[in-house]
Amino acid sequence: MSELKNDRFLKALMRQPVDRTPVWMMRQAGRYLPEYRAVRTQAGDFMSLCKNTELACEVTLQPLERYAMDAAILFSDILTIPDAMGLGLYFETGEGPKFRKPVRTEADIENLQVINTANDLGYVTDAVTMIRRELNGRVPLIGFSGSPWTLATYMIEGQSSRDFARAKTMLYTQPELMHQLLEKLALSVIDYLNAQIRAGAQAVQIFDTWGGALSHSAYAEFSLAYMKKIVDGLITHHDGRDVPVILFTKGGGLWLEAMADTGCHALGLDWTMDIAAAKSRVGHQVALQGNMDPAVLRADPATIEAQVESIMRGYGQGSGHIFNLGHGITPDIDPDHVKVFVDAVHRFSEN
Amino acid sequence: MSELKNDRFLKALMRQPVDRTPVWMMRQAGRYLPEYRAVRTQAGDFMSLCKNTELACEVTLQPLERYAMDAAILFSDILTIPDAMGLGLYFETGEGPKFRKPVRTEADIENLQVINTANDLGYVTDAVTMIRRELNGRVPLIGFSGSPWTLATYMIEGQSSRDFARAKTMLYTQPELMHQLLEKLALSVIDYLNAQIRAGAQAVQIFDTWGGALSHSAYAEFSLAYMKKIVDGLITHHDGRDVPVILFTKGGGLWLEAMADTGCHALGLDWTMDIAAAKSRVGHQVALQGNMDPAVLRADPATIEAQVESIMRGYGQGSGHIFNLGHGITPDIDPDHVKVFVDAVHRFSEN
Repeated sequence: MSELKNDRFLKALMRQPVDRTPVWMMRQAGRYLPEYRAVRTQAGDFMSLCKNTELACEVTLQPLERYAMDAAILFSDILTIPDAMGLGLYFETGEGPKFRKPVRTEADIENLQVINTANDLGYVTDAVTMIRRELNGRVPLIGFSGSPWTLATYMIEGQSSRDFARAKTMLYTQPELMHQLLEKLALSVIDYLNAQIRAGAQAVQIFDTWGGALSHSAYAEFSLAYMKKIVDGLITHHDGRDVPVILFTKGGGLWLEAMADTGCHALGLDWTMDIAAAKSRVGHQVALQGNMDPAVLRADPATIEAQVESIMRGYGQGSGHIFNLGHGITPDIDPDHVKVFVDAVHRFSEN
Repeated sequence: MSELKNDRFLKALMRQPVDRTPVWMMRQAGRYLPEYRAVRTQAGDFMSLCKNTELACEVTLQPLERYAMDAAILFSDILTIPDAMGLGLYFETGEGPKFRKPVRTEADIENLQVINTANDLGYVTDAVTMIRRELNGRVPLIGFSGSPWTLATYMIEGQSSRDFARAKTMLYTQPELMHQLLEKLALSVIDYLNAQIRAGAQAVQIFDTWGGALSHSAYAEFSLAYMKKIVDGLITHHDGRDVPVILFTKGGGLWLEAMADTGCHALGLDWTMDIAAAKSRVGHQVALQGNMDPAVLRADPATIEAQVESIMRGYGQGSGHIFNLGHGITPDIDPDHVKVFVDAVHRFSEN
């Protein structure tokens, strides 16, 4: 593989000094870009795009052509694992992801097999390999997976949910069954992320989109414990470099200390968290990634710049900050505003 | 008015000793009760029920007939103020509240008038008066309002929202206009809650349902500042008693210290917060209300009892705890499970 020309993202994740704050955006390869929408139309539906190695590679690289991003993130979906388990992932226009065969009974869960990435999700590792080749060392590539709890909510509900009625009922009335499901998912995620790392992913992020819907104690037992298991099971060193792990629990601001104690390298922060407070709580232990409200990108350039500066000032001196949004960019954002955002991060952080 | 026979709710809000932990449930007069559904059918739509003094009184009292609740809460909606401002509140089956005339432009906001409760919302104070008479001192009556920010989100979006695109765009691009709207709403809420207090509400709760969608700094400036203004403007003493104020920001666990500093008497906690941690952070300043995940009510009786006991043990010794759910009860709950819940609170807290 060619030498990495821009390693400030990887360095910042390890809290090593960098010349300026690295930046990338969750969902940076996405619908706000007209060139993405063109490829998506060409591919057909969303999953066909994920499974088409060349097109997945193409959209992964699109934001790098426009913006001075310091990392690329594999174009894929958080729900590839349950899809590979046979649940039948599909997307209806204007709605979130759905499963044709949700998991509802003990038998459903007992019949689930831990996935084998090489056999079941080769299209993902193929995309990683091709993206690394096409990146040619420009910036590092991030691999990712949904967290076991987040995957479980979609698998049980069959779709996204407002209050997770079925998943929480199982959690409270059949905790052993829920643990059985989460255990299979954790083992699958370990296999999946390690396969991404072997194929070339230089850092990995675990997206715990729905951990914040749990109570304090249920979060520790049903979400965080399985993310820790994953952190413990990941390849820590590959191809001459550490492989940093980022944990992102949306709505997890109350639990930063426990998250940092998993041994991960960085925490993703949503926009509700004051980054200065987060740094004083866990900044001695982990790097911090975030955390501008994606809604700010709807505002005028001066407002975007002021918000970037405020977060930059909040983090203050010292290494260990990766700039990002507090959640994925939304489809309605003007691509020119993203340029304002990325350039502002660079300008305000140059030494 | 007749003498109050059960004042443990009011005493706990003032952090005075009580014989056992008081309990009530957000949305306790609601669709999970068959007798509520019968009255609702009789009334027609939801707003007709709110505006019918006798029926609103009847449904307010229904949960007290079944359960040993320590407080009643006025049956009404958080969006009565914008409705009184002329926005035309309505409810479509299976969907949340909507407004016929959302607020979108500077002119829309300039034309809004601060409400005068006596003229515009007499049906609410009439209901308070009748409920107090019918309660006949059994338990105290809670009045309530939505917070200015929460009202503003519905007024601008025209309905509930996933990411508050319009409201946040206004907040970031026209902050002065947003402040003008929030100022009118805060003055209206003060008038509204004081009218409820004069009519007989013995405590009031401000529901900040969507404060948790804001960034740390936007929450302070656009939601909390206006709740503080309201706390400062409320009648503190009426009919020989203090009138305690409860602030409830869903998703506000990161901001408890700032909320307590408003001078309110109690904080409502959602279920993501560890009540022991909340007590050690702000329990010397305010009472705490909450905070069982409403989803627990879907579980079996033994699980409900175990969760109640765990929260009770989390709060531990000392006065100042009002048991509640972390959010409103959902329509799918078995009414018998609510009895298990209420009885468990009483049993586990008796000295």
